Amino acid sequence: MHDFPVPDVWLPHRVSYGETDTMGVLYYAEYLHLFERARNEYTRQHGIRYSVVEQRGIFLPVREARCRYRAPARYDDLLHVRAGVSELKRASLRFVYEIRDQDKRQLLAEGMTQHAFVDKGGRPVAVPPWFREAFLK
Amino acid sequence: MHDFPVPDVWLPHRVSYGETDTMGVLYYAEYLHLFERARNEYTRQHGIRYSVVEQRGIFLPVREARCRYRAPARYDDLLHVRAGVSELKRASLRFVYEIRDQDKRQLLAEGMTQHAFVDKGGRPVAVPPWFREAFLK
Amino acid sequence: MHDFPVPDVWLPHRVSYGETDTMGVLYYAEYLHLFERARNEYTRQHGIRYSVVEQRGIFLPVREARCRYRAPARYDDLLHVRAGVSELKRASLRFVYEIRDQDKRQLLAEGMTQHAFVDKGGRPVAVPPWFREAFLK
Amino acid sequence: MHDFPVPDVWLPHRVSYGETDTMGVLYYAEYLHLFERARNEYTRQHGIRYSVVEQRGIFLPVREARCRYRAPARYDDLLHVRAGVSELKRASLRFVYEIRDQDKRQLLAEGMTQHAFVDKGGRPVAVPPWFREAFLK
Repeated sequence: MHDFPVPDVWLPHRVSYGETDTMGVLYYAEYLHLFERARNEYTRQHGIRYSVVEQRGIFLPVREARCRYRAPARYDDLLHVRAGVSELKRASLRFVYEIRDQDKRQLLAEGMTQHAFVDKGGRPVAVPPWFREAFLK
Repeated sequence: MHDFPVPDVWLPHRVSYGETDTMGVLYYAEYLHLFERARNEYTRQHGIRYSVVEQRGIFLPVREARCRYRAPARYDDLLHVRAGVSELKRASLRFVYEIRDQDKRQLLAEGMTQHAFVDKGGRPVAVPPWFREAFLK
Repeated sequence: MHDFPVPDVWLPHRVSYGETDTMGVLYYAEYLHLFERARNEYTRQHGIRYSVVEQRGIFLPVREARCRYRAPARYDDLLHVRAGVSELKRASLRFVYEIRDQDKRQLLAEGMTQHAFVDKGGRPVAVPPWFREAFLK
Repeated sequence: MHDFPVPDVWLPHRVSYGETDTMGVLYYAEYLHLFERARNEYTRQHGIRYSVVEQRGIFLPVREARCRYRAPARYDDLLHVRAGVSELKRASLRFVYEIRDQDKRQLLAEGMTQHAFVDKGGRPVAVPPWFREAFLK
């Protein structure tokens, strides 16, 4: 059985030609772009715009990223990218992701990104209460 | 006959897998990345680091870009990207480019980018003398 | 006055973090990715899947691309990309594009791509009647 | 102490503007492009061209990728990307990577990619002897 954290969001994404490679499939680095799009969508759906977070002097650089590639995606495929938060600690955050096919049935890839909360100078800061509240409801 | 402005610079570039597409060739948007790499190299070889230009409050956003694609490039091909300045006006600059094969013989693509000189607020500024001097020698 | 060919399609696009650069704006090569997405959408809405065109042995490589950048787009901006066909000759095709802001009011960029019709070996082929019919209705 | 497998290769890479993002640093997905460039270089230096491997009907799709980001890289920075093989099994292969600064002293990122050996149909195949021999010497 597969547990995915709630709440989650789904983002549809059509594979473009420029995202594919000579093997005729979605290039492996593009999955990290899709993860980013999905976590932005998660953030937006929880009432936070990441651009506003940065305006408040808080940044969430990626400390680690992982992806497992289970089945290829091809040009013009409609994918669904799922994002959720699996961990929200004092000064860090972990997103998890799935990429599924058109019917959301076949799992094509899964991954995670670990983020730190830092100020403009790169120093760790605690997750602000307004962020924590909005993010997990 | 083909005239290319002097001085010029050449930048070697190996086509990576991630730059290709399903057709098995270098994707058309990647040429603009190569143009950027070549004009950075031009700038560096003329004693200017573009990062320093920006630190001095001057930016060179692209106003127009063009590329003509003459023959495809494939994964693992070694290309040579040539850049030169075809026009340096009061507050703008035009780079021209060629992309050639391993022997620099076959012309694979050619293009140009037109740049404005602007300050941080996006207002036009005159090309500074130190820039003009360094750039064309 | 500005004429845009009919029929046209509009594709919404949210600017991701990975598409921006140090200047904080949508990187200039990314516009060609957006043009590609919009012409794929045009093709799909006219009952043709480009992947099927390729399966029938016909390819539409880009021969020329141009873009004029009028105003910058930033992270998280919602853009609308418009595509139409301005020319369909015996063995070539020209798409034109506009990129507009959230309200479709401000023109941020405009451009074109010129395509050849070729077979797998790269030899020019005439535009097939089924393509011509579907494409312009 | 840090062990890196021998033999290894180093690939220099200059960070371009298009590889950075609004935070002013090398975007996190670009590291996977650098890993790919470095493993291609490893392959080439061991007398194998990956394009030839594919012509022989063998493909090495990525099954898993990981990257830990330790310190940011900025526009125009000269990086050194190191690649080595940490595991070569019957039908799979693991590359490990480091990305270091101009002096190769500071570790900016480290990662790995796990690859399967498959035929054109995606079925697992054993690592061919000519590959194994060339790859580890």
